Amino acid sequence: MSASTSEPFAAVEVIAAKRDGKVLSNPMIDWVVEAYTRGVVADEQMSALLMAILLNGMNSSEISRWTNAMINSGERMSWSMLTRRTTDKHSTGGVGDKITLPLAPVVSACGAAVPQLSGRGLGHTGGTLDKLESIPGWRASLSNEEMLAVIQSCGAVICAAGSGLAPADKKLYALRDVTGTVESIPLIASSIMSKKIAEGTGALVLDVKTGSGAFMPDPKRAHELASTMVRLGLDAGVKTVALVTAMDVPLGLTAGNALEVRESVEVLGGGGPGDVVELTIALAREMLAAGGIRATKDPAETLRDGSAMDVWRRMIKAQGGDPDAKLPVAKHQEQVFANRDGVLATLDALSVGVAAWRLGAGRSRQGEKVQAGAGVELFAKPGDVVKKGQPIMTLHTDTPERFTRAMEALDGGWSIGEKAAPRMPLILDRIAE
Amino acid sequence: MSASTSEPFAAVEVIAAKRDGKVLSNPMIDWVVEAYTRGVVADEQMSALLMAILLNGMNSSEISRWTNAMINSGERMSWSMLTRRTTDKHSTGGVGDKITLPLAPVVSACGAAVPQLSGRGLGHTGGTLDKLESIPGWRASLSNEEMLAVIQSCGAVICAAGSGLAPADKKLYALRDVTGTVESIPLIASSIMSKKIAEGTGALVLDVKTGSGAFMPDPKRAHELASTMVRLGLDAGVKTVALVTAMDVPLGLTAGNALEVRESVEVLGGGGPGDVVELTIALAREMLAAGGIRATKDPAETLRDGSAMDVWRRMIKAQGGDPDAKLPVAKHQEQVFANRDGVLATLDALSVGVAAWRLGAGRSRQGEKVQAGAGVELFAKPGDVVKKGQPIMTLHTDTPERFTRAMEALDGGWSIGEKAAPRMPLILDRIAE
Repeated sequence: MSASTSEPFAAVEVIAAKRDGKVLSNPMIDWVVEAYTRGVVADEQMSALLMAILLNGMNSSEISRWTNAMINSGERMSWSMLTRRTTDKHSTGGVGDKITLPLAPVVSACGAAVPQLSGRGLGHTGGTLDKLESIPGWRASLSNEEMLAVIQSCGAVICAAGSGLAPADKKLYALRDVTGTVESIPLIASSIMSKKIAEGTGALVLDVKTGSGAFMPDPKRAHELASTMVRLGLDAGVKTVALVTAMDVPLGLTAGNALEVRESVEVLGGGGPGDVVELTIALAREMLAAGGIRATKDPAETLRDGSAMDVWRRMIKAQGGDPDAKLPVAKHQEQVFANRDGVLATLDALSVGVAAWRLGAGRSRQGEKVQAGAGVELFAKPGDVVKKGQPIMTLHTDTPERFTRAMEALDGGWSIGEKAAPRMPLILDRIAE
Repeated sequence: MSASTSEPFAAVEVIAAKRDGKVLSNPMIDWVVEAYTRGVVADEQMSALLMAILLNGMNSSEISRWTNAMINSGERMSWSMLTRRTTDKHSTGGVGDKITLPLAPVVSACGAAVPQLSGRGLGHTGGTLDKLESIPGWRASLSNEEMLAVIQSCGAVICAAGSGLAPADKKLYALRDVTGTVESIPLIASSIMSKKIAEGTGALVLDVKTGSGAFMPDPKRAHELASTMVRLGLDAGVKTVALVTAMDVPLGLTAGNALEVRESVEVLGGGGPGDVVELTIALAREMLAAGGIRATKDPAETLRDGSAMDVWRRMIKAQGGDPDAKLPVAKHQEQVFANRDGVLATLDALSVGVAAWRLGAGRSRQGEKVQAGAGVELFAKPGDVVKKGQPIMTLHTDTPERFTRAMEALDGGWSIGEKAAPRMPLILDRIAE
């Protein structure tokens, strides 16, 4: 009731509207995101608003406007100078999810341009940049000019998103992390999509993970998140498709930075674990279709004929890395053995992810260093026959005092029985419009 | 999943529990209030927790523990050295609510000790200390020794609560004010009761206002707040009773600091408006009964025989004030006239309160100065016969540019008709156990 500033709203007014279950108006949303980025809305005010959003929700037009406001807080990239069409992928994160590493070269080898701006890991899920940084010399941070040069010469670039992209989201993400306001579908969807839309890709395929090792263990919530994000992408003019995929069991046979690079190179060489290959090909086909790209060949072909490997090697070199360098190996190893004959019945993604994190592959706080060689190497997946005394997995770390807590994380996380327990299909669902 | 501090909890863990609708454990509540006071839990974390509490509630044992944690953040006063028993009153605030001013002397004149630690006004409701400060020389801030000396010599003291009383509440109150987390019954009840219990009174009568000019316009919510507070008082061993009283129409004929002091002195002299006298007597009887005090006379008698006035004069003098000094008068006046013959049908408490605030009697932010002479003086109450051209009210201010917005606040806030509109009884409800 007293007007003493030139701001169109008071923060308390916006907070109270959402607290009372009302729909936030477009001007309110535009203002609160912009004023928060500018520092006029304080952290303690935004966190109260975020909690009200988490508990009272936002409708689809509020989420769309919120996403737009975050995009408008920074620059929006354009790839219109490229002769190829752009298409990109985003995964919500999982254990052993190294798919981006073989996928970007595969899709490039089929004729698309892939501007893959990636992030780092937090908690038990790994980050693409952390993995690639285990390659000696490889640089994640590129200027916009360098980014363009790499994508023009290689057809793909995997690098860190610049600080000019959706700065509101960066500030909000750090705040949500410490205020218990991460687990909100509107906030997760707008965070992911603001960055991906600002990145300027023409098409986008979302890999929404579900199961114990995923951010959204419940498949229903994963489906809701996927639908929300597809809608946001389409609203912003980006051809968007989502796959909901399994994260009840780790992907492939490795979780950890250098370990996953090694496995990715095996896939690019025509080998590697079946689930990694299958998901890479499925996502590549979706990316090409969504991007409206007349592929020069089928994705599976690029793994056999060496063309994906060729893109990979050029891309790594272009960012200062040596594709032939020996990857870092952790200083200490410890093995876990089968305690009876039988079939590996269960192998829990979260347990393996937490073990890899505790071994040093992941971080607890933004900015913490990770160990390049640390992680978990698996020798069996559910359904595989195992013999008593055979190694089931090897734990890797530079700091052996970490073995105990990693072992604790694995306790109850795997079991041997007569047959494999029921598990999710690799691809549960496809959402498009 | 990573333990790197010596704190028993992480703030996010406590926030997430309440966010997910769980009951907070006693150790969690003790820790989060204490750690917030200490600065280990940050403002943005506490505001997220407060919003989760506002939306998901707290059960009665959580509220009781939360209140205790706030009491334990500071000192707890004791009046055991007094020969008289203590009894106190707290009002949730309203327009023209000057009851404390005549009430404390009345109850003292009946034989009780009244340690009345009061606050300042915010928004459209006035504050007891702001009113008394319009008396030349009067001091609100007393040391504990001065406080004791005044209550021993006068049987009553009205002064500011020291900073040692429930410091957690002070910090939380300032945070709630800017984060849209004021309107929560658990948070309001614990805020009021932590201060009143820490103040050390033996008995407490709560005057919970309801109607347009009150903090809780809805009588049902006012009843719920009253019950919650009575329960908290009883849990802490304080004999507590609540009256839910009307605030649809201003109390008495004045709203503003010096204007209300003048009216209070009229009441103490045996005159004054009927509603102010009636509520003063009703609350005095409750205070005496709750305190288990064998009254030397009936409260009404103290207004006729001058004994309450006698306490008032001694009490004002003991705090440096001159009870015979001329009260400040605002530099400018403007009148509002009846536009027809009839009966004053409505007179809205909120409209009058906002007008007085805008004239300078109230503040918009903590720490702002108020004008001693500003406010609204009424010449009619609903039901009174009025003649066209007769003044209905006079507006007072030192800053005449404020008249326009005060008039806007009054627009639609009063009306003349054939008869008075239905209104609340002065005392709607009594809650005790």
